[in-house]
Amino acid sequence: MQRLRIDVWSDIACPWCYVGKRRLEAALAQFPHRDAVDVIWRSFELDPSAPRDLGATPPYAARLARKYGTSMGEAELMIRRMTQTAAADGLDFHFERIRPGNTFDAHRLLHLAHEHGRQGALKERLLRAYLTEGEPIGDQATLARLASEVGLAADEVREVLRGDGFAREVRADEAEARRLGIRGVPFFLLANRDAISGAHPPEALLAALTTAWAANQALEAAAPGAVCGPDGCT
Amino acid sequence: MQRLRIDVWSDIACPWCYVGKRRLEAALAQFPHRDAVDVIWRSFELDPSAPRDLGATPPYAARLARKYGTSMGEAELMIRRMTQTAAADGLDFHFERIRPGNTFDAHRLLHLAHEHGRQGALKERLLRAYLTEGEPIGDQATLARLASEVGLAADEVREVLRGDGFAREVRADEAEARRLGIRGVPFFLLANRDAISGAHPPEALLAALTTAWAANQALEAAAPGAVCGPDGCT
Repeated sequence: MQRLRIDVWSDIACPWCYVGKRRLEAALAQFPHRDAVDVIWRSFELDPSAPRDLGATPPYAARLARKYGTSMGEAELMIRRMTQTAAADGLDFHFERIRPGNTFDAHRLLHLAHEHGRQGALKERLLRAYLTEGEPIGDQATLARLASEVGLAADEVREVLRGDGFAREVRADEAEARRLGIRGVPFFLLANRDAISGAHPPEALLAALTTAWAANQALEAAAPGAVCGPDGCT
Repeated sequence: MQRLRIDVWSDIACPWCYVGKRRLEAALAQFPHRDAVDVIWRSFELDPSAPRDLGATPPYAARLARKYGTSMGEAELMIRRMTQTAAADGLDFHFERIRPGNTFDAHRLLHLAHEHGRQGALKERLLRAYLTEGEPIGDQATLARLASEVGLAADEVREVLRGDGFAREVRADEAEARRLGIRGVPFFLLANRDAISGAHPPEALLAALTTAWAANQALEAAAPGAVCGPDGCT
């Protein structure tokens, strides 16, 4: 039996990434081979130039209205819709609390967490901190506290944050994203082969999981087949 | 609904290619979406340096014994095994009749046949001519006759054979085979994604067909998903 690898490129400051995570979990909950699935969270920064902590910012709706060139009413409608979508997936978004910031350090810690088998837990903690609790996601003291909550050793976290630990790994993930043509997240890559861009309903993810799994097992079972080559036939 | 494309690299002078073709047909016969499958026969020459017609050659067993450095008895055993395998797939191989030759012109005609929707028919006719009937596969008069039997216009066939028609297409297929790392045939590529090397049992091919089909439909149904990008979220 061949395990199924799922690479997910995503950011923390990314509402659809959290929704996509929940939907992937819902799909996995229905997937009979879920114990043989490995989910790897890959780094993707939507705004690499963001300062660590923007500090006091205009309300989210105002920033949204400016970004999209809409009225405040339209921006508030967009926020309400996104909040309702998230609620339908069991998530409690609070855009009124959001404190934008740079997510590079968060991604570095996710690589550290991966080494300790705590990546999924930290990814969840960071998303909740940002989208539900309004934590400053670029603030190192906040990151250290969140990392320790999921069981990472405080001294190791401190060392990574103080230096440039895992910076290269974050850049490598982002380079691979560029090679794959990823322009938005979440982005799911199943079995290093089937690409799914965006947060899809669990049923669609489950169908993709099912086919990727079956393809993996079929290809494994099938090899090697009888061939003729330049030097004769097997 | 997205059609499923199957590219098959294979040669004519290739016992496993004929067996692989029958097994693919057996898999397709059980495949509920077979009417939405397109099989494309791609060119692969096992011996590009072979002369058009080797003329009078030593018996096949003697050539095999020399090629593999075995005794005549071992060579005859190999031939008997391959003949039995083919028979189990409904094929009537006659190695004692085989007349080796160059298959480049045969591949050129297969490209012509593709343009007229007769590629599958010509591929079948050529394999039978070579492996069952002992026709000289590199002989242009023989090729012209076989092509006309599957409905290709005699003057068009003559023009292709006389000139270098479709030579570029044959070379392009072979260049793609090199890029894909194909060293033996048959080689199946499903949905431009799932590679299967060699003649596998119909059940394995059917499993691969099923998963490739499902993956195609799931990915089609899934796109596009909601994402966040550098310029905001959908």
